[in-house]
Amino acid sequence: MNFLLDIVIVLILARLLGEIFSRAKLPLILGYLFAGFLAGPLFNLVEIGNVHIFGEIGLILLLFIAGFKEVSTEMLIREKKYSLSIGIFGSLIPFGLGYLTGQWFGFSFINSLIIGVALSATSIASSLLAFIKEGKLNTRTGRSLVGAAIVDDIIALLLLAFVTSLIVTGGVFDMLSIGNLLGGMVTFFIVFVLVSKAAPSIFRIARKLRTEEMRFSLVFVLIIFIAYLAQEFGLSTVIGAFAAGIILSRVTSLKSKRFYDDIKVVSEGIFIPFFFAFIGLQIVLDVSILSILPLAILVMAFVGKFLGVWIGSVFSKLERQEKIGLSFGMIPRGEVALVVIALGKSLIPDFPNEIFSSIIITIVVTIFLAPIFVQRFLKKAKLPG
Amino acid sequence: MNFLLDIVIVLILARLLGEIFSRAKLPLILGYLFAGFLAGPLFNLVEIGNVHIFGEIGLILLLFIAGFKEVSTEMLIREKKYSLSIGIFGSLIPFGLGYLTGQWFGFSFINSLIIGVALSATSIASSLLAFIKEGKLNTRTGRSLVGAAIVDDIIALLLLAFVTSLIVTGGVFDMLSIGNLLGGMVTFFIVFVLVSKAAPSIFRIARKLRTEEMRFSLVFVLIIFIAYLAQEFGLSTVIGAFAAGIILSRVTSLKSKRFYDDIKVVSEGIFIPFFFAFIGLQIVLDVSILSILPLAILVMAFVGKFLGVWIGSVFSKLERQEKIGLSFGMIPRGEVALVVIALGKSLIPDFPNEIFSSIIITIVVTIFLAPIFVQRFLKKAKLPG
Repeated sequence: MNFLLDIVIVLILARLLGEIFSRAKLPLILGYLFAGFLAGPLFNLVEIGNVHIFGEIGLILLLFIAGFKEVSTEMLIREKKYSLSIGIFGSLIPFGLGYLTGQWFGFSFINSLIIGVALSATSIASSLLAFIKEGKLNTRTGRSLVGAAIVDDIIALLLLAFVTSLIVTGGVFDMLSIGNLLGGMVTFFIVFVLVSKAAPSIFRIARKLRTEEMRFSLVFVLIIFIAYLAQEFGLSTVIGAFAAGIILSRVTSLKSKRFYDDIKVVSEGIFIPFFFAFIGLQIVLDVSILSILPLAILVMAFVGKFLGVWIGSVFSKLERQEKIGLSFGMIPRGEVALVVIALGKSLIPDFPNEIFSSIIITIVVTIFLAPIFVQRFLKKAKLPG
Repeated sequence: MNFLLDIVIVLILARLLGEIFSRAKLPLILGYLFAGFLAGPLFNLVEIGNVHIFGEIGLILLLFIAGFKEVSTEMLIREKKYSLSIGIFGSLIPFGLGYLTGQWFGFSFINSLIIGVALSATSIASSLLAFIKEGKLNTRTGRSLVGAAIVDDIIALLLLAFVTSLIVTGGVFDMLSIGNLLGGMVTFFIVFVLVSKAAPSIFRIARKLRTEEMRFSLVFVLIIFIAYLAQEFGLSTVIGAFAAGIILSRVTSLKSKRFYDDIKVVSEGIFIPFFFAFIGLQIVLDVSILSILPLAILVMAFVGKFLGVWIGSVFSKLERQEKIGLSFGMIPRGEVALVVIALGKSLIPDFPNEIFSSIIITIVVTIFLAPIFVQRFLKKAKLPG
């Protein structure tokens, strides 16, 4: 009943499992997810409503940081010609296959779309580690992989914005709801451009203010405000937070290490673990998890990326070995897929637990297996530099 | 209805008014308080439940920082012989007078005690500014004032712990509830000592951990956990947070500027403004504010400190001028008084609005008037160095 105790329990478990997972060279986010699973479904220590606000702010900060870093890494993309088409097909094909799988299992139009979006984005952190270990990151394959992952991240978020809007308008395709949808998107885009233009001035004024901690407070407010606006315009807080990251990454005075450290302390030290734990808390222990659905989605997660890379590189000069390396590298799913099902669960009244659990299973399995495949492959492969 | 929007509104208003107030050389906390007043009672923009959690964490962090700084400033106290007795009487006399005022107006035993505790602690920041402006801080009067204010802060918190325990046990003086109360206090004291001993080792281990932001996360968890424990033992989160501050101020690895900066960014950049705004939100606009109660409490706030300083310095060699300077300097009430009425409101089912508002009026008036008195007095006074 006491929210202070619940916050303590979740954060301690998240830290503990995060530490164990990162020592075992497993992604931190799986540790957080597992912490939530222990705190909720397994031992029932925590009331989910008590960590909800922290989880939602964690989600917003997670996407803010993604947007904030995205732009700077975007500029670092070499191999643009390969990355772009591989990223596009590497996200759209799994999206399509995910959607079809949903339809095949008889899920609604919207729920099928959600499966698709969840499969579209790569979480390459763990694959990259394998590339780095084998000293193959600075090959054409490694560089294309980084670029393609960024491209498919952005496409996944656009798909997500689209699906969220559909959910908000009730998935009805009449003129009015499509009008509302487009209207909301356009309005948010205008807001985005306006705030982009205004941001440097806002922070120039903020530097003249006397109260300490002003800059950080202002950033925090701006992020949450833009996230809120996006939500109001029928998109989601996720898109708003990502947009806020892009906007603020262009403000010169925020390009200091000090600012990034502040944001990281607040985000990763407090709020972000709650987002992943919040997802873990929502897992429903259910025999239906053992059905054929998670297997089908998992297969599509693998097949989708292979097909996507293959189609996306059909006109390129990439060699067969490189295509295989890229495919393996793009298999892991992670943060974005979790964001997608979290949104699904919060926006759709009876979002099927089977989908929720199957996507989590897909994430866990791909994150574990892909790096192993990548490393084995890289040990033998001869990749052009 | 949307908690994201409410967070944005409160934080923007708090920042804006905080900036205006600090430019006008008025205390920041009054700005925050006023922000809450605008957001709630006046314009009804915000739903109070949506900022409650942030406010409560703000309160905990406020007292954590107080405890964290207290110990280091404690060592700086010179003029110990004057500070101690003036601090003791300077808090106990207003406490007694506040209690009697409550009884005189027919309030319950507990509510009268709350008025007393609210009047006991000094908020000298604004008086100190006047001393500094007049170049009189490094006089015997100035030094004694700093010391006495720290002493009366600690006494006020002890009184508060006592009153909170009384409230939790229902204000009944039978053997069982007194036993429970003492048992809780003793248990918490044992926990306090144990955690004090363990803290350096905990942080030594934490330094070896790999996950980033671990130290900060750990501090955040420890603070909230100790606050929670204090609450469970019948004290209040306030006492627990203060105790956590004292404990962690003794951990060597936390004595870095970097750590203090992190804590400040999180506390003052995000949570603490919500605590004061939360109080402002709870003000009830009511004609009864215009009754005689606020005037009576205000008079006691002035008289109490004069009497307290006079009695507390009766065996000292302090001159008449010095005693007057000390009395004026100790008149402002602030944070602690706000903490007291916030607790009263949250713990006592029908805590009288008249008391809540009267204490706020007392805080506002004393914070405005005392520095003016101090400055006028210091301009003429000849104080021994």
